[in-house]
Amino acid sequence: MTGDFTLADLPLRADLVGAEPYGAPQLVVPVVLNVNENPYPPSEAVRREMAEAVVATAGSLNRYPEREALALRKDLAAYLGHGLRPENIWAANGSNEIMSQLLTAFGGPGRKVLAFTPTYSMYPEYARNTCTSYVTVPRRPDHTLDARLVLDAIAEHDPTVVLVTTPNNPTGTSTGLDVIEEVAANTDAVIVVDEAYQEFSQGPSALELLPRFPRLVVSRTMSKAFALAGGRVGYLAAHPAVVDACRIVRLPYHLSAQTQAVARVALRHGDELLARVDELAAEARGLQQWLRERGYDVVPSDANFVLFGRFPDRHRVWQQLLDRGVLIRETGPEGYLRASAGTPDEMAALRDALTDIAPTLEGTKP
Amino acid sequence: MTGDFTLADLPLRADLVGAEPYGAPQLVVPVVLNVNENPYPPSEAVRREMAEAVVATAGSLNRYPEREALALRKDLAAYLGHGLRPENIWAANGSNEIMSQLLTAFGGPGRKVLAFTPTYSMYPEYARNTCTSYVTVPRRPDHTLDARLVLDAIAEHDPTVVLVTTPNNPTGTSTGLDVIEEVAANTDAVIVVDEAYQEFSQGPSALELLPRFPRLVVSRTMSKAFALAGGRVGYLAAHPAVVDACRIVRLPYHLSAQTQAVARVALRHGDELLARVDELAAEARGLQQWLRERGYDVVPSDANFVLFGRFPDRHRVWQQLLDRGVLIRETGPEGYLRASAGTPDEMAALRDALTDIAPTLEGTKP
Repeated sequence: MTGDFTLADLPLRADLVGAEPYGAPQLVVPVVLNVNENPYPPSEAVRREMAEAVVATAGSLNRYPEREALALRKDLAAYLGHGLRPENIWAANGSNEIMSQLLTAFGGPGRKVLAFTPTYSMYPEYARNTCTSYVTVPRRPDHTLDARLVLDAIAEHDPTVVLVTTPNNPTGTSTGLDVIEEVAANTDAVIVVDEAYQEFSQGPSALELLPRFPRLVVSRTMSKAFALAGGRVGYLAAHPAVVDACRIVRLPYHLSAQTQAVARVALRHGDELLARVDELAAEARGLQQWLRERGYDVVPSDANFVLFGRFPDRHRVWQQLLDRGVLIRETGPEGYLRASAGTPDEMAALRDALTDIAPTLEGTKP
Repeated sequence: MTGDFTLADLPLRADLVGAEPYGAPQLVVPVVLNVNENPYPPSEAVRREMAEAVVATAGSLNRYPEREALALRKDLAAYLGHGLRPENIWAANGSNEIMSQLLTAFGGPGRKVLAFTPTYSMYPEYARNTCTSYVTVPRRPDHTLDARLVLDAIAEHDPTVVLVTTPNNPTGTSTGLDVIEEVAANTDAVIVVDEAYQEFSQGPSALELLPRFPRLVVSRTMSKAFALAGGRVGYLAAHPAVVDACRIVRLPYHLSAQTQAVARVALRHGDELLARVDELAAEARGLQQWLRERGYDVVPSDANFVLFGRFPDRHRVWQQLLDRGVLIRETGPEGYLRASAGTPDEMAALRDALTDIAPTLEGTKP
């Protein structure tokens, strides 16, 4: 290969120049609490059933997969309830792909997607890839949203798509259905309620608003509550017209046969996989309390992660924890770190590491 | 759901209005020869090994998959040979996603991708989704390309990406390396050589040109030769700078753990899976000869499919064959149909069906 040739010699889109591939470090460390994964792998029985499903599927792997993934969408509709039917559901390779399809359909050049910061760090990437302008408005100081703030932001920016993340990542803050309802009733924009962490919350889902608001979209993922981050299955529930829009822009056969098979097994064993959800939510609450008792500033979280600070040099704290075998995430507002809820042992390791480095933090906390 | 609400009530991107989801009919019929699939499923042994790989993988399905898919890229590099290394390889969910990533990186608003018609019907969809202008120039009357034609087209349209499909779909026409070499030597555009059907051809691969042309990209798929259409694995080989560009725009964790696992098993059993390639190429040649002997106009094909005609009413012929349990494809130039190479029995069924309907075609062939 011609050695002196670099990316600068290729006709990269101007707004991509200097961009770095997205992603948290994938490091091999004892305690991984940086990407809000579920720490509990599928049981041996579920794994065996996944394997059997793959054997069955592999008998026709030479053929293209079922393009509409109808059986999977039917299973997802049954899981969500709320009277949803397969035509209300769309599935893709992670909510990454769901969001990208939505912005391809409803965003694009000259259009805007609005989000409320601090929020999920992938949103600007979806916008950039789909040539949609990414506009943001800060959340209130306590990271909550109210209808006035959202509607004022819509009035100011005139977006075609609005992202409301609840519980919000990385803060864990929920937005009440009353807020979403008032917003949906007063805009023609497509409101995407990103409920990636909804199963960990005690609050109601925006799914119940769908019958009244056909421009409302609820996005979900199997990565977290279903412990299937490796399986890459995201999905949405919405009016069938929204699904039709996704079907226009989706790449045909986007969901492989093995992914459809693995996801359906996971859904069949929802009881087992979801059983850990309450436990993880409890771990997250316990961690919040423990941190508060030690004087940290902790953002109240309804999800399986906790944002806490403030550190004058958060990178140093992150590194000190990593040196002790605990990987958490440098994300969110300046001075804060985010830790995922893990097993009791993993939580103990995090607490031990924090206790261990506490003397170096004296006088640096707020 | 609000019943009178339709897609027209949503802010669909203007250039998507009226578009239909892409895809050939997925019908249940005895003989499926419409999407150039490989008719031979993986053997029981390979399927078992895929299942075992999924069991192993599923033990960490709760974790995100290896984001760079390095082990898979290493295996793909070894399969391709030509001194390629993992950093020359990029993999995604089908060549659909590979092409979309390339156009996201090197296309976009105000830019053009150039293709030579008749060619693969997904290209305009990739372009549309990525807001890239799709411009086309007709191939020569015999569907071949020469360097003059391609370079003149580049001079006329000034594209950032040029698609050269060899063997071309749906014609099966190859483009010689001398042509690709002369084009690559005389443009700064990114030349994507789509070799989805290369394994079926006797001709050399553009892979051997890669060391000299860092803007050259060779796109491949495991769908056809590896009989893995259901597995959804496409890949490219190119200078590492091209891979870097794809890494910027890819959705993180785009390749699921189970897809990486299944693809690696298929590559380990390349000898078995690729053994059918020569057989299928021979079936395609046999079909061409049989059709020619009966007076059909047959486009010489180096792939596992055959484009033939001409029919004043191709849809009627397509339907007549379907009525006899044989599904082929209405695609390509007006008056032509495309049939994939299948098993000897499937080919016999196609010939029988054509023989059966021959009296109705009298006087309608050229």
